[in-house]
Amino acid sequence: MDEAAGRENNRKRHRVVVVGAGFGGLSAVDRLKGAPVDIILIDQRNHHLFQPLLYQAATASLATSEIAWPIRSIVRHRPEVTTLLGTVEGVDAARRLVLVNGAEPLAFDTLILATGARHGYFGHDEWEAFAPGLKTVEDAILIRRGILKAFEDAELERDADTRTALLTFVVIGGGPTGVELAGTIADLAHDTLKGEYRSIDPHMARVLLIEAGSRVLAGFPDTLSEYTRKALEKIGVEVLLGQAVTNIEAGLVTIGEQRIPARTIVWAAGVRASPAAEWLDVPSDRSGRMFVEPDLSVADYPEIFAIGDTIVIEGPDGKAVPGIAPAAKQGGRYVADVIRRRLSGAKPPPPFAYRHDGSLAQIGKGKAVIDFGRIKLHGAIAWWLWGIAHILFLIGTRSRLSVALSWLWIYVRNQRGARLIIEPELTNAARSTHGARTTTM
Amino acid sequence: MDEAAGRENNRKRHRVVVVGAGFGGLSAVDRLKGAPVDIILIDQRNHHLFQPLLYQAATASLATSEIAWPIRSIVRHRPEVTTLLGTVEGVDAARRLVLVNGAEPLAFDTLILATGARHGYFGHDEWEAFAPGLKTVEDAILIRRGILKAFEDAELERDADTRTALLTFVVIGGGPTGVELAGTIADLAHDTLKGEYRSIDPHMARVLLIEAGSRVLAGFPDTLSEYTRKALEKIGVEVLLGQAVTNIEAGLVTIGEQRIPARTIVWAAGVRASPAAEWLDVPSDRSGRMFVEPDLSVADYPEIFAIGDTIVIEGPDGKAVPGIAPAAKQGGRYVADVIRRRLSGAKPPPPFAYRHDGSLAQIGKGKAVIDFGRIKLHGAIAWWLWGIAHILFLIGTRSRLSVALSWLWIYVRNQRGARLIIEPELTNAARSTHGARTTTM
Repeated sequence: MDEAAGRENNRKRHRVVVVGAGFGGLSAVDRLKGAPVDIILIDQRNHHLFQPLLYQAATASLATSEIAWPIRSIVRHRPEVTTLLGTVEGVDAARRLVLVNGAEPLAFDTLILATGARHGYFGHDEWEAFAPGLKTVEDAILIRRGILKAFEDAELERDADTRTALLTFVVIGGGPTGVELAGTIADLAHDTLKGEYRSIDPHMARVLLIEAGSRVLAGFPDTLSEYTRKALEKIGVEVLLGQAVTNIEAGLVTIGEQRIPARTIVWAAGVRASPAAEWLDVPSDRSGRMFVEPDLSVADYPEIFAIGDTIVIEGPDGKAVPGIAPAAKQGGRYVADVIRRRLSGAKPPPPFAYRHDGSLAQIGKGKAVIDFGRIKLHGAIAWWLWGIAHILFLIGTRSRLSVALSWLWIYVRNQRGARLIIEPELTNAARSTHGARTTTM
Repeated sequence: MDEAAGRENNRKRHRVVVVGAGFGGLSAVDRLKGAPVDIILIDQRNHHLFQPLLYQAATASLATSEIAWPIRSIVRHRPEVTTLLGTVEGVDAARRLVLVNGAEPLAFDTLILATGARHGYFGHDEWEAFAPGLKTVEDAILIRRGILKAFEDAELERDADTRTALLTFVVIGGGPTGVELAGTIADLAHDTLKGEYRSIDPHMARVLLIEAGSRVLAGFPDTLSEYTRKALEKIGVEVLLGQAVTNIEAGLVTIGEQRIPARTIVWAAGVRASPAAEWLDVPSDRSGRMFVEPDLSVADYPEIFAIGDTIVIEGPDGKAVPGIAPAAKQGGRYVADVIRRRLSGAKPPPPFAYRHDGSLAQIGKGKAVIDFGRIKLHGAIAWWLWGIAHILFLIGTRSRLSVALSWLWIYVRNQRGARLIIEPELTNAARSTHGARTTTM
């Protein structure tokens, strides 16, 4: 077969466009292996991000490259998969086109939208500037910079009140990310930075975890929530329950009458789905999550599927399927099966049924909670299981060895390997100023 | 002794201010261990950077955190050393004050200026915007982004000429950094990225190394320069010798009549010293490098020393001491000895005499050149020695294991662990736009 004929032949194959190379999109691509399809995988980043450990990058525990892998490297042994770096700006459902910024529209036979979510501020988008959320590598670098810089500035600060605000770290939202962030910031301050400053004692750092609900880790059983609260308090995190943030300004969190000056504020309280529902003009919930059919297809468009954090769907227990990696992965695999069956003429599978395998959250060094349904674990044993599970979930042996090494050093020596303050502004400044004027001492 | 008395006592100790925590500054601090001094170590970054391997961060081979360590962590066991994150903007030599941006002036009894150099453009500072140099972690992230993005954009590009320019990588300057960058870009294109694209073949990438002089690695013996040129050509680098760049614009390098369209241009041709000479109003050479006394003190200011890349001084062979890490380290140790002797009333040591231990440069995967004077090595054996030497030079067992692991994966599997495109603009954009409008697919 000559090359031109090969290409023509390829064009006749069914084309699946997958938008988003997160857990959902990659699982769909994986499950479509061997199916008679060409796949175009498009993402606005060049890397797949292991979001469950992103808070570790934000707290200097892991390097960003330890939890992010180039997408095209992941699928390099799949000649039928083409990876594109581009930003999708809309979908022309009637003409079956994906609209990509700065490139020609991309035709599809089947479309999988796995476009995820970003942090959401419940109508207070103006808070984002003062309380960034954690969804991308850049978010993590920015939050890491903020945390480390607060200690540096505190060391130089003479005014006691300003110093107190510099050493106050507020995490808003008591879900797994909030708990993990608050616990790790406390570990960083109390263990890693210990003895490294001369004017301040990093142990003076206040870490507050603010949760509007009545307990942390609301998705876990009561007993584990209670254990987590106590464990957080033991490592120095102040847990404020039933307290809703009413305002956020630069360096100031307000809860009703209470005003908490804090240089570092991190948002882990809510998410906002990608605009996929808007692209298709289909109904969505308050958080922008699209409603889908029982087979995860979009109403009126059976060739368009949506999975993961950008949709809202009920699980078998009547509760909404949680926005976590396993749900996205199961959605991706399910949709791939639907597509395979359609192409082979088999009857469709039963409706998508989310299976909850368990919930895990790390509290701080050496402590975690795990809820496997009948089996509930906490403390050191849960932490070891949590660690092993996460290392196995990583992609590639090198990442596993590297993360294991990083965690070993944190565990044994309290040293965190990625304590870099990277200045986005400096990069830009260097472009526009004269080299000779820039000191690089 | 109560705390207040202790502090008072401390104030009476001789205070050494060290500006810059590069190889020179850290060596001085290290050698002052046990001396009756208080030390203030100030740097505008929170990390010490292992610059000899920075090109590996710029080419996705190593994570930035593998070659950068928090300064205050390095000196944490030295209670007499205070680390400050700040930018020095001048020196009031008469009043013995260091002027720090946004903070009170810092008094010193002895001052060590180890402020290094940045890339210099021989009076063509406007070239920097189009041909960035490589001196900081941010520079490396930016160049890495440029290299990886060029391949991504080429994959999407339909126009043949534009695609050729996207896949043309020009490195200007045939010294060790230029050779290492060009060789590693060639390895990245030809080995690591192989088979990952569908429209382009990364093997089509042109890598050019442009050197105005008659040979690469001018500091090495002729035979090793010639070996290096041939080895570079063997891995696909076009080496242009005796060709001076006459102009650089966005995406275009001009050499006399010859115009080379290239999306990625990296500058490795010259350095410009920090403005330390300007601060003190003392003479400097064309590159801004300060002239110093034989004991590395500054004329008329015996209590001020300058070391490393910010000074120019002759070696015993009459040639200028090269701007490399060993020279800075030797300077730091020498100056520390001078200070110790002064404080103990001993007679001053003989003038600073640079001892050249050898030169090493990696050419590409598995090949290097080493010049130990009488012993000259090239090829695989030189590469292994180069690798072992650099791993030993790193700080800390964790970094050594981590870099060894990264190199093992490159060596055996051609996989580079830090292939992340990080967008500085996205970080800033995320701050100013509404979270809900930003897709994170």
